[in-house]
Amino acid sequence: MRGLLKNAKVTRAAPKPVTRLVSRHLLGLEGVMRPELELIFDTAETMLDVLDRPIKKVPPLRGVTVANLFYESSTRTRFSFELAEKRLSADTVNFSASGSSVSKGESLVDTVKNIEAMKIDIVVLRHGSTGAPHKLAQEIDSVVINAGDGQHEHPTQGLLDILTLRRKYGNAKVKDLVVTIVGDVMHSRVARSNIWGLRTMGARVQVCGPSTLMPVEIEKMGVTVFHNLDAALDGADVVNVLRIQRERQDGGLLPSLREYTQQWGITPERLGRMKPDYTVMHPGPINRGVEIVPAVADGDHSVILPQVTHGVAVRMAVLYLLAGGSERGAQS
Amino acid sequence: MRGLLKNAKVTRAAPKPVTRLVSRHLLGLEGVMRPELELIFDTAETMLDVLDRPIKKVPPLRGVTVANLFYESSTRTRFSFELAEKRLSADTVNFSASGSSVSKGESLVDTVKNIEAMKIDIVVLRHGSTGAPHKLAQEIDSVVINAGDGQHEHPTQGLLDILTLRRKYGNAKVKDLVVTIVGDVMHSRVARSNIWGLRTMGARVQVCGPSTLMPVEIEKMGVTVFHNLDAALDGADVVNVLRIQRERQDGGLLPSLREYTQQWGITPERLGRMKPDYTVMHPGPINRGVEIVPAVADGDHSVILPQVTHGVAVRMAVLYLLAGGSERGAQS
Amino acid sequence: MRGLLKNAKVTRAAPKPVTRLVSRHLLGLEGVMRPELELIFDTAETMLDVLDRPIKKVPPLRGVTVANLFYESSTRTRFSFELAEKRLSADTVNFSASGSSVSKGESLVDTVKNIEAMKIDIVVLRHGSTGAPHKLAQEIDSVVINAGDGQHEHPTQGLLDILTLRRKYGNAKVKDLVVTIVGDVMHSRVARSNIWGLRTMGARVQVCGPSTLMPVEIEKMGVTVFHNLDAALDGADVVNVLRIQRERQDGGLLPSLREYTQQWGITPERLGRMKPDYTVMHPGPINRGVEIVPAVADGDHSVILPQVTHGVAVRMAVLYLLAGGSERGAQS
Repeated sequence: MRGLLKNAKVTRAAPKPVTRLVSRHLLGLEGVMRPELELIFDTAETMLDVLDRPIKKVPPLRGVTVANLFYESSTRTRFSFELAEKRLSADTVNFSASGSSVSKGESLVDTVKNIEAMKIDIVVLRHGSTGAPHKLAQEIDSVVINAGDGQHEHPTQGLLDILTLRRKYGNAKVKDLVVTIVGDVMHSRVARSNIWGLRTMGARVQVCGPSTLMPVEIEKMGVTVFHNLDAALDGADVVNVLRIQRERQDGGLLPSLREYTQQWGITPERLGRMKPDYTVMHPGPINRGVEIVPAVADGDHSVILPQVTHGVAVRMAVLYLLAGGSERGAQS
Repeated sequence: MRGLLKNAKVTRAAPKPVTRLVSRHLLGLEGVMRPELELIFDTAETMLDVLDRPIKKVPPLRGVTVANLFYESSTRTRFSFELAEKRLSADTVNFSASGSSVSKGESLVDTVKNIEAMKIDIVVLRHGSTGAPHKLAQEIDSVVINAGDGQHEHPTQGLLDILTLRRKYGNAKVKDLVVTIVGDVMHSRVARSNIWGLRTMGARVQVCGPSTLMPVEIEKMGVTVFHNLDAALDGADVVNVLRIQRERQDGGLLPSLREYTQQWGITPERLGRMKPDYTVMHPGPINRGVEIVPAVADGDHSVILPQVTHGVAVRMAVLYLLAGGSERGAQS
Repeated sequence: MRGLLKNAKVTRAAPKPVTRLVSRHLLGLEGVMRPELELIFDTAETMLDVLDRPIKKVPPLRGVTVANLFYESSTRTRFSFELAEKRLSADTVNFSASGSSVSKGESLVDTVKNIEAMKIDIVVLRHGSTGAPHKLAQEIDSVVINAGDGQHEHPTQGLLDILTLRRKYGNAKVKDLVVTIVGDVMHSRVARSNIWGLRTMGARVQVCGPSTLMPVEIEKMGVTVFHNLDAALDGADVVNVLRIQRERQDGGLLPSLREYTQQWGITPERLGRMKPDYTVMHPGPINRGVEIVPAVADGDHSVILPQVTHGVAVRMAVLYLLAGGSERGAQS
């Protein structure tokens, strides 16, 4: 079955390093090349050093303004971006959907064009509609960073997941990893961004979950589909456990949380089939006892909390690179 | 009909320049003298230069604390003030009505006296009650800036509108402009602040809209009332299109949005009656296709997005001048 | 009746000064020793000097990140902490319960562990459950400051109240004061923190209120219980008036607000029984005309607004000391 992967176009030769990103925006990991990913990861390593200092603040984004526009609420992702921005000395303004001019019936493009006219340099957008940040990027001059769009992409989550693997296994080994993503792949922007990024890095990606939650033609992304969890974990290095949205039950896509847990919940027993040095990831927030049991989430192989730390560093790296990187840094 | 305007008391002689504002507060444009307006505009020009720099931040309000108290939600005005404050290096705290001690039944004055006791230097207040900032200014020592009170004034909106005209036509020409304000004049604090400011600058102001939305005795403000849109636009330099609040329909003041659009909507055809170098303004957010059609809102004569940029600059200017202006700036 | 107080263990000998706090956290005033309290008060005096400057900002918490997690809304306490943080040059992120991942069913500990993984140095927590900050402090490495937990403690309120008395009467006299706390003692974290702190400082504390709102065995905290307001005020130096929560009526604990006011409301007449130099305190927000009449709240003996100023200073002091105090300050 792994033979299928040979069809996927993946550069395994060591790519030439780059010093800047091709796009002015970060809309998704689809199409982002491996040297760009490595530039982000290398920059994030520097940022992790900053985060270990008593004074976790550096000046490169001084006088740069970032608007965090969260049309869907997310304390954790918003905090992570806001902290990344402030630690780079940016000024930030925050908007969340409730109590906003959204209710006044204004379009997203009109709202953001207005915000741009306030001389905002960077817009971090979370939006329920697939492609919203892409549409914005066509309409405005500000840099756009996608913080999650519909069921499409969540590129900084993909980046932080890969950075976490890179730090554990080493950069050279990422291409040899077998990563199994378990759960509601259909609705998961985390899954999509992981697949694009991991495939570009040369890793093997397997997806596994209830067939009602598995998108058709997902194989075209270069992944292998499993409908049996034990088979999907067999010999894998990494399991990335997706969060189950309880509201999927209402849509009839899930029989019950209990049945989900029985069939797809990640338990210590199941992990015995993985490689000895296996890794457990989860984008959070965790439903303890639903898609993952506490013994696994809090266990020695879990990197769930390091993922969160890496998230801040990756966002600092992306902000730094898109705001002008070293040129600007030298200026400050 | 224009002859009526001769009754209005307007200084047309060039006024002597001033170096500071008379009032410690900005509660409205009523009573603000022309040299004061020009001081604000000249200061705003400097702030526009700051906004064009890569590092859009200057130090004069360092260590100054500003509380943005928005008892009515407004993403755009709050963002504009917050950006103005941060770019002057002030520290900001934000309050919006939901989930606040408002629900605990405390009076506005008690709330703000408490905030003042926290050594807040400047309070930016948006409130649904006419005169709320004026009452505050009598009770507290902090500087009060009115960010919109009831259906009374929205002085920084008036200032940014006039700054926009001044930048397009030149300072000397503002007094020669004919400005037509179209729409729900009765409920519009934007209209009132524009009328006070424009009249002080010497411009001619005309208002036009459904008679159910036209305040009685508005002529006493020195404006001409039109009940026919074509007549009101005939020969005018500027049309300032007010936002229609959809909730006015519920009050029976509007027949229907469709009828409003037919009779009062701003279309390219209607603009043919204006001066060749005419200007279209709107305070936003726009109801596209209701009070204004997209071809006009996005057209060559529209200054809607520049208005937004000028809003940040004018707010920076007001904050700078009220916080102590050049004396303080020298100190930092 | 005052003889009962002889049973309480109170050190009245002058304690040796200390240069740092014993605990890494501020979870409550229970167990905090008198030299620690005096260190906080002495530090707060320095912070009050900062608050009197035109530039109310000092650098010791530069690069330190503080998360303000308010699971119960409180504009005033949140503002006070946020201002304290910003004036020490910390970076802040704010969270309030509505629209958060709380609704996603995540536990408090999981939420805060995630926030900690973002390299947050200090967590300021307000939570409806007694002991929530204590539980957190056991689970995470960040410094935890209790901004009010359930009906348990609100230590910075206790500190600011005592600082206010210390500034009025002098440090040496605090131990001689008789302080009467009036109202809903049962549900009041303000009362509990005041009792612990005042008793440690050596003051005599009396509590008074409806028996339905008086906790059983409150005497064990070293206070005297009065069921008659006049007796409780007789000869007292200080009356600290607790806010009446209107919702207590629904629980049947209060007959009616009018009856409460008649029996327990603080009026000028009742204050005649106190010492001539008496002091009136209230933690705010005030229900004017319910637990206190305006003539008292706004009278010469009221220190209600100074309490608010002292609140910012005390929070600056606590943040400064817990973030590393003089060592770190020297570093910046």
